[in-house]
Amino acid sequence: MSNTFTITHEDKNTGARTGILHTPHGDIQTPVFMPVGTQAVVKTLDQTDLKNLGAEIILANTYHLHLRPGENLIASKGGLHKFMNWPGPILTDSGGFQVFSLGLQKEIKGDNKEKLVKITEDGVEFRSHLDGSKHFFTPEEAINIQHKLGADIIMAFDECTPDSAPKKYAEEAMERTHRWAKRCLQQHKKLKTKPLLFGIIQGGNHQTLREQSARVIAGMNFDGIAIGGESIGYNMSATDKILDWVLPLIPTEKARYTMGVGLSPADLLAVVEKGVDMFDCVAPTRLARHGMFLINNTKNKYRLNIGNKQYQTDDAPIDKNCACSTCQNYSRAYLHHLFQANEMTGMRLATIHNLHFMLNLMKQARKAIMKDKFREFKNKFAE
Amino acid sequence: MSNTFTITHEDKNTGARTGILHTPHGDIQTPVFMPVGTQAVVKTLDQTDLKNLGAEIILANTYHLHLRPGENLIASKGGLHKFMNWPGPILTDSGGFQVFSLGLQKEIKGDNKEKLVKITEDGVEFRSHLDGSKHFFTPEEAINIQHKLGADIIMAFDECTPDSAPKKYAEEAMERTHRWAKRCLQQHKKLKTKPLLFGIIQGGNHQTLREQSARVIAGMNFDGIAIGGESIGYNMSATDKILDWVLPLIPTEKARYTMGVGLSPADLLAVVEKGVDMFDCVAPTRLARHGMFLINNTKNKYRLNIGNKQYQTDDAPIDKNCACSTCQNYSRAYLHHLFQANEMTGMRLATIHNLHFMLNLMKQARKAIMKDKFREFKNKFAE
Repeated sequence: MSNTFTITHEDKNTGARTGILHTPHGDIQTPVFMPVGTQAVVKTLDQTDLKNLGAEIILANTYHLHLRPGENLIASKGGLHKFMNWPGPILTDSGGFQVFSLGLQKEIKGDNKEKLVKITEDGVEFRSHLDGSKHFFTPEEAINIQHKLGADIIMAFDECTPDSAPKKYAEEAMERTHRWAKRCLQQHKKLKTKPLLFGIIQGGNHQTLREQSARVIAGMNFDGIAIGGESIGYNMSATDKILDWVLPLIPTEKARYTMGVGLSPADLLAVVEKGVDMFDCVAPTRLARHGMFLINNTKNKYRLNIGNKQYQTDDAPIDKNCACSTCQNYSRAYLHHLFQANEMTGMRLATIHNLHFMLNLMKQARKAIMKDKFREFKNKFAE
Repeated sequence: MSNTFTITHEDKNTGARTGILHTPHGDIQTPVFMPVGTQAVVKTLDQTDLKNLGAEIILANTYHLHLRPGENLIASKGGLHKFMNWPGPILTDSGGFQVFSLGLQKEIKGDNKEKLVKITEDGVEFRSHLDGSKHFFTPEEAINIQHKLGADIIMAFDECTPDSAPKKYAEEAMERTHRWAKRCLQQHKKLKTKPLLFGIIQGGNHQTLREQSARVIAGMNFDGIAIGGESIGYNMSATDKILDWVLPLIPTEKARYTMGVGLSPADLLAVVEKGVDMFDCVAPTRLARHGMFLINNTKNKYRLNIGNKQYQTDDAPIDKNCACSTCQNYSRAYLHHLFQANEMTGMRLATIHNLHFMLNLMKQARKAIMKDKFREFKNKFAE
């Protein structure tokens, strides 16, 4: 059993808890929102921005970095941390989700004429979205690549089954994911570097499969447990149900990670309440690039669309109570102008605000949990 | 005569000089390179970046800001400084150059079928590049707009004649520009705010016209004298000749501004040597967005193209002697990756480097002038 995760407090009235996750590049306060840096960069920001934001950990994507610039190049530069000059913890996904979004749905439906993805017991063959070149990921290869990238937390290679898959397919895929999980652990042990390795629970939206997957993955020697799948984060009522099925079956002492949660700030609080410790989502940064600023207001899904005419003459900052550098320095009128004029600076200023919003929300959530007042905090946020 | 400019030292061996230009928002050390912030933002940067870079003055464009968001909106926000949260000096152009680049060439050649631009004694009618709407700039209107924008240094409204124009046309246009210059001064006096107003010498590439224009503009009560025209900055041998014609005719105590010089770093030194105090150019920031980093190396026009394959594995910074935050934090290999991956962050990091390069070059030039060693400095840079 790992001792990489220390629970520091459990809220008396909900499943929420605070903890510290220990990684080779430092400790992380949980619950934690992890900004996504797909291509070894959080889009529009540099590492000084991330430091100023107080980000404790960021994500990078194995699939993207394998294709460009390649894990060997990054390894030759001393790993991701040195390559991108980010001293803090990094989590890499395994590439499984990208394989899904690339074409697995077509494969299952039988109309994968271009053969973008081909799954066998051994692994997954796929074509690069950049140049169409063929690649083959086995569980062992996915682990090797992540070790070469030098991440602090790496993920088992899984098959992220679409919700639309027939139950029989979902079951086969889940069982394959379990066999792959075992192979990932075996390969992981053979390698010299010692990142944390997380397993991933799959099983679609089927209760029996999810419970079975939770028992199998929880029974293996992973440092943390992730809950994956198409619905997670993108369908919160399904996410809610899945968490109710699987969380009771995961040892309480392991860190829990819902992959892809954070489309709405409220979604973070929903999974924290159930006892989830980690989450990531591209939404805050992607929304930022479309002029959508996150605000503490349930109207319009916590979003302020800076493109709206009403902000053209608005002297106020995005949020007068926000401590981010964007709100400290710029008015809605100026930000409106930057987006109207298609200036990249607007996208960066929005990204800074949205990440500050998510990171600060988690900071406040941790404080509330420590005081056993998480439910009040969550309810107040939803007002 | 204005006392807005103090010459602090004249180089004993060249025409170069150092000075201090006094503006409502602070003093500027000259010679000075002025970063261009066309739409009230230096592309990819925010005002914290500019402060960190030590920029002493930036440019903004009257034509662009008139169209979007409009000078009345900016005035209602307390002017450009408050609108964009930039506390330092700002220079606005008059819109004359944009009228030229919009369609004046076609007008003169007689194939201006779309009638993008129509020049009369009273002013210029033009169509917006954004929505095709009709606008009319008179000299008075150009001055009014710049006062409303709240700039520290404003420019007379001129007609920037293309070099291809027949001499007769260039002469007519120059004489019109002189009449407009007078109207600009008259309108400027009527207004409450007190920016510095600079006149602009035109006359194409014709010696007699340039000399005539220099005498007329220098004889008016402008705070500084600009040298405009299609060639300035874009054809350095023509720029050289024009400066030799006009500079002896401009009172030495007035600040001199070549509009659009800076395509190459060496061009700055060429005009500084002749006694020019101010210049601006979009090249350093535009090149940055195309992955062209400025370096102290005459090969390849002082440019390092980060897209070149050779930089894929290069651990060195762009310039190991450069103090900019990009060179302090990132390798060529990482910057190569950011540009290959089309990440906006790369454009911002390149912009920071290129502006630092130009600003630092001027800082070093000022030091050299103070020691009467400008020629040595210039020669060493060209090695």
